[in-house]
Amino acid sequence: MGAFEDLRERLAEIHDLSRAAALLGWDERTMMPSAGAEGRAETLATLARVRHEMFTADEIGRLTEEVRSGSGGDAEPGTSIAADLARVVGRDWEKARRVPSDLRADLTRASSVAENVWIEAKARSDFSMLLPHLERNVELTRRYAECFEGFPGFAHPYDPLLDEYEPEMSSDRMRTILAELRDGLVPLVAEASSNDAPVDDPFIGDFPIERQRLLINDLISALPFPEGSWRLDPTEHPFATTIGRGDIRLTTRYDPGNLAVALFSAVHEAGHGLYEAGVDPELTRTPLSKPRSLGLHESQSRLWENWVARSGPFLTWILPRLREGFPGRFDELDASQLERGASRIERSLIRIEADEVTYNLHILIRFELELEIFEDRIELAELPEAWNARYHDYLGLDVPDDAHGVLQDVHWPSGAFGYFPTYSLGNIVAGQLWEAAERDIGELPARIGEGDFVSLGDWLRDRVHRHGRRLSAAEILERAGCSELSVDPLLGHLREKVAIAA
Amino acid sequence: MGAFEDLRERLAEIHDLSRAAALLGWDERTMMPSAGAEGRAETLATLARVRHEMFTADEIGRLTEEVRSGSGGDAEPGTSIAADLARVVGRDWEKARRVPSDLRADLTRASSVAENVWIEAKARSDFSMLLPHLERNVELTRRYAECFEGFPGFAHPYDPLLDEYEPEMSSDRMRTILAELRDGLVPLVAEASSNDAPVDDPFIGDFPIERQRLLINDLISALPFPEGSWRLDPTEHPFATTIGRGDIRLTTRYDPGNLAVALFSAVHEAGHGLYEAGVDPELTRTPLSKPRSLGLHESQSRLWENWVARSGPFLTWILPRLREGFPGRFDELDASQLERGASRIERSLIRIEADEVTYNLHILIRFELELEIFEDRIELAELPEAWNARYHDYLGLDVPDDAHGVLQDVHWPSGAFGYFPTYSLGNIVAGQLWEAAERDIGELPARIGEGDFVSLGDWLRDRVHRHGRRLSAAEILERAGCSELSVDPLLGHLREKVAIAA
Repeated sequence: MGAFEDLRERLAEIHDLSRAAALLGWDERTMMPSAGAEGRAETLATLARVRHEMFTADEIGRLTEEVRSGSGGDAEPGTSIAADLARVVGRDWEKARRVPSDLRADLTRASSVAENVWIEAKARSDFSMLLPHLERNVELTRRYAECFEGFPGFAHPYDPLLDEYEPEMSSDRMRTILAELRDGLVPLVAEASSNDAPVDDPFIGDFPIERQRLLINDLISALPFPEGSWRLDPTEHPFATTIGRGDIRLTTRYDPGNLAVALFSAVHEAGHGLYEAGVDPELTRTPLSKPRSLGLHESQSRLWENWVARSGPFLTWILPRLREGFPGRFDELDASQLERGASRIERSLIRIEADEVTYNLHILIRFELELEIFEDRIELAELPEAWNARYHDYLGLDVPDDAHGVLQDVHWPSGAFGYFPTYSLGNIVAGQLWEAAERDIGELPARIGEGDFVSLGDWLRDRVHRHGRRLSAAEILERAGCSELSVDPLLGHLREKVAIAA
Repeated sequence: MGAFEDLRERLAEIHDLSRAAALLGWDERTMMPSAGAEGRAETLATLARVRHEMFTADEIGRLTEEVRSGSGGDAEPGTSIAADLARVVGRDWEKARRVPSDLRADLTRASSVAENVWIEAKARSDFSMLLPHLERNVELTRRYAECFEGFPGFAHPYDPLLDEYEPEMSSDRMRTILAELRDGLVPLVAEASSNDAPVDDPFIGDFPIERQRLLINDLISALPFPEGSWRLDPTEHPFATTIGRGDIRLTTRYDPGNLAVALFSAVHEAGHGLYEAGVDPELTRTPLSKPRSLGLHESQSRLWENWVARSGPFLTWILPRLREGFPGRFDELDASQLERGASRIERSLIRIEADEVTYNLHILIRFELELEIFEDRIELAELPEAWNARYHDYLGLDVPDDAHGVLQDVHWPSGAFGYFPTYSLGNIVAGQLWEAAERDIGELPARIGEGDFVSLGDWLRDRVHRHGRRLSAAEILERAGCSELSVDPLLGHLREKVAIAA
């Protein structure tokens, strides 16, 4: 067995363990009896530990180096699987080896404790309860970042954090692009709010869950998934995950009083699922088979949710299905009324309930505060005040208590600093990809209106999905015809939404 | 960390990986999208390989020896967890180390190929298709058995095979006890068949699956499971499995035309689930937490299915629930008619469709043929003829083709020689345990008639379940007051069934 085959086999084993963990995670959130929680946490911790030990072994580094030097490791990305594997795995391995296992264990334990305290703190709206745990998380995260001193490409203490979710994206670039987005959004939201008129929302009403389930299963069947390769289950916080090739798990949440919740979240998760299903089969069971970055991942879910499913053509296509699924409920409505309902804009305090126009301001606030934390420009005790000031400045809202403010998200208690900005990056990238797809495919909205989701699906698979991790996010976008990151397509799209909602 | 803690931690990791595999197996048979099959096989193979490597490591042997010598490894079983762990793990480790990994891989591959051929061979009723693959399986299994030359307690080439499923049971003892069972059963079945009169079966009819599901969920809720510790899902071939402490998965099969299928199979699987749920929590995540043997496991499922659920008192208890669940369907029926329906005896060709009286003859035929194979008394090509002759002798039936004969079970294609006899052993042990429980608890049938399943559940947990693998099957039975293995209680029970059915 050559070095490449040996490396590939070892990585395939590690990959398989990660897929077992994916199933344990899916099951925990969809199927597991409540009394199984404690045992499940132990099983997941063991799988993470065994995988980490297997991956950080000296042998992986040696084989990677051998493959790199033997197979032209500096070949143009995308031309040789061996070279791409050596490049990507070499970087992952270097990163993994820099973090002492004690620190890793401390991070896991601290965030697990903080998450539990957070539940209580949020229920009581008591930030002071969480504060010492947040301080511990930030201290450990700083120590994590310090492990990467001198690591190629890292210039800012936030860079190693961002890199976990958006590899090879610099904090400075992210700061610049999100500032541009903020400058476009703040006046747009102010404008949208000036004509705040209550809209009759066609998705609010009495929608029996079993009928919602049937409608959404039919809808996902119409999306370009391979036959027999997915299932859809209810859960509290929707997500999508891949258990293995040909096995995509989508989830959604049903609100019997609001059809929009399940409908748009299911399409959102389907967008994630299509990305993972579309990776080149040649990459199966290698670390190259994963999506490139959270930003790219989110671009796929947002594109299907906001550019496809909330569009007039899509709503025209689905209207007869809504009429059939909910007799009498949609008879008097036309697609433009659905579109208006799907484009509602309302400034609100809670990120996960936000519409697509105001959503990015919620993200910006979090991202700016994270930068302040890791640039030592703010004390954690001052976070609630800083949070509330920004909600006032950007959204014109007063935060009544921390439960509706700084305590609302699990990310900081769980130690996931660097995650938030990828949500907005996803929206930005979705706008650019949509423009490129419209250019390349031709008549894209008309095709969607006819229920042709394959044209867009094929284009995305070819331009984005199939590459897996072989190309960087920037390379993928460039080859898809998107050139440099730009907020203009997203802002243009959101301006249209404001016009529709007006 | 001392040797015991170190050993325990390593074994806990291996245990966790086995529970991940259990979830993958459960999911494959209840939830997995069809296109996921290939990837799932790879994930399961990796988990098996990694576990095997971790378990057969020198370090496990060294630590086990250290614990054994340090903690009084020859202490009376059941008095010291450390000593019990060292004893049980030491034996497992010795066994695992004797089998070369090449042979293990060959066995896995050969049985996987043979299983696929078997599906086709059974569909065509063509034994000659399967024959070369069966020969390969038997040849590899002989080589497996040869690995155990000189292993303490093994005296017969079938001993190492039986030991995989029924540890520390000798082939000679099994042969003697099952011959006693055969000698009692053959005349009993002949007698039962002489008064073959068609019975109106109250479980045959139109039973909507959703109503069956509700009934059976209520029924299992009445069984002594810990709160929130189980779920029930439909599958093709029912099974029970444990994913972790507090997480028992039961499955059943719904036949819309026959309520008995789901009802009794659900209680059967619940019996298995109660065994696994009842192991002492102190043993969690150790190899001692598993049930002792397949025979003991089957004794639990059979006891709940055949001694409890098919009994007059239980059927009296469930009758009002049946009337409520299936309005009009049971109004004219009393419990004795249900009992007669649940006691139907009918000689048949297919094991998995057999009633509880004739069932053991199906097993005996398979066990006797397995002994002939491994004692070199039969050529595999002669199996169909030998099979058919025994069905004629023991059951008075002519086998029309091999699909209804020697090709009906997956066990031999999958290489599971030594498994079959544990089914009958389970029935024998269930009879003995029931007698002991009746003696100890008092008024047991009356309690069951009142829906008191806790008295029996507590007794079984205390006498059988909690020990896990700390005691041998023989020790467990002796301490439960069952003394030596005896077929008399089972034969007495079956005689009663024949009388009821008559």
